[in-house]
Amino acid sequence: MGKTLEYPKESANTINRYKERGKYDLQTIHQLINTSPVLHVSFANDTDEDGFPALLPMIGQMGSFAYPSAGIDEPLDLYLHGYVSSRIMNLARKKQGEGEVTSNEASGMAVSIAATKVDGLVLSLTPNSHSYNYRSAVVHGYACLVSDPEEKIYAMRLITDSVLDNRWANTRTPPDKSEMSSTSILRVRVVNASAKVRAGAPHDDRKDTERADLVDSVWTGVVPVYERLGDPVPSLDNRVDEVPGYIRQYVERVNRLNEDYAMSVTRDK
Amino acid sequence: MGKTLEYPKESANTINRYKERGKYDLQTIHQLINTSPVLHVSFANDTDEDGFPALLPMIGQMGSFAYPSAGIDEPLDLYLHGYVSSRIMNLARKKQGEGEVTSNEASGMAVSIAATKVDGLVLSLTPNSHSYNYRSAVVHGYACLVSDPEEKIYAMRLITDSVLDNRWANTRTPPDKSEMSSTSILRVRVVNASAKVRAGAPHDDRKDTERADLVDSVWTGVVPVYERLGDPVPSLDNRVDEVPGYIRQYVERVNRLNEDYAMSVTRDK
Repeated sequence: MGKTLEYPKESANTINRYKERGKYDLQTIHQLINTSPVLHVSFANDTDEDGFPALLPMIGQMGSFAYPSAGIDEPLDLYLHGYVSSRIMNLARKKQGEGEVTSNEASGMAVSIAATKVDGLVLSLTPNSHSYNYRSAVVHGYACLVSDPEEKIYAMRLITDSVLDNRWANTRTPPDKSEMSSTSILRVRVVNASAKVRAGAPHDDRKDTERADLVDSVWTGVVPVYERLGDPVPSLDNRVDEVPGYIRQYVERVNRLNEDYAMSVTRDK
Repeated sequence: MGKTLEYPKESANTINRYKERGKYDLQTIHQLINTSPVLHVSFANDTDEDGFPALLPMIGQMGSFAYPSAGIDEPLDLYLHGYVSSRIMNLARKKQGEGEVTSNEASGMAVSIAATKVDGLVLSLTPNSHSYNYRSAVVHGYACLVSDPEEKIYAMRLITDSVLDNRWANTRTPPDKSEMSSTSILRVRVVNASAKVRAGAPHDDRKDTERADLVDSVWTGVVPVYERLGDPVPSLDNRVDEVPGYIRQYVERVNRLNEDYAMSVTRDK
């Protein structure tokens, strides 16, 4: 039995409201990041004078180039993928020193990264006690551009296989020279992180549950919510007659996992 | 025929990469916000010395208290809902001047707000041309706490009905004194916004489409992705035998809309 690793609780990541929903273990947080098709990434926007942080949807995955066999509950970096001259990549490059390739982690760009899943509509007697079942993770770390081509390919494979398991091995690889130079990868060294999870039935105050007129007229319960993958639709140029097994299996597996989780939290344990 | 209103293109919100995917019309942006169960909200975090912007999932809706009949394509504010002493509400209160109620919009807190939907996995011949079908909106604006109780109730109703249509009218309302004081509402005056939409089939470069070995072996197409609402699960305390019509109809309508959209963008128009 190994021990459960947790991120340190610092002022930036400690959950204060609904403390009991707070989670700090690596497994919960990494799993949320790795099963979210889209992450939201935020950073201070140097060029904007109005004070709005930059905020954008990106694709990313947790992994370890140094220890590729590391488990989901072990220390991992967060890899983000983007176009070479996008704002975030330009800014990261600027921070690392114009034109200069550096592996100095301390010089990275501070980023906040969120992954959120809605698992159910929690319908109670009165609007104030309505809620969602949800799982959310927020990660803070320092982002640096990856310069080692091998690490870049490691991250590209990780990210491609997060779109669909085993997709990398079933497509034309490796990336050619122009593909390598048009894509940038950021490696985020995570310094702290937290998750928040709400699961279970609605809960009302006694002032409402004691009113028979309310309890007899207001339906209470949970409407499960989950992301679903539909049947694959071939492109007009596709010449492979049957949908390959690794695609069908992925669709089935993800659909089962997503629906099962949402259903499992409709009632209190 | 009215004219199509658009947000101004400023440096903070102009789409530079894949320009043709950029959208600035109010309708597209407002609709994305209003049909996303969760938004991501980012703002500069005064108390954090490490430079990480605050980033959190919140529930919000576009609406107009001054012109409640305004259409989705007309100027609207964004209302966000939270606990009275959460960090974002405390910060907004501080910005408005301790204890002082002000309606001076200029003194609001700068916030960035994102809504993103993944509509499909776009599977092409090579990892570099893989993509998602997606719709994302980012809104920049200044947030102030709502002090007028009528506006607060207007926003609470808007937000409750965004969880499930007509839920407000079918629950115990209005909020009582302690509910009114434990809930805060932020009104965000939007100054600029943009959306980005990717729809359609995968597209590969000629260098790959000309290779028969690839085209004959790699399945290409789109796996539709959409959020699904499951069958409502009554709580153990529920005493209303049948799931009410407004709940059943909402579940059916949202499921139809979500699936239809994801399917409609699996092929190019």
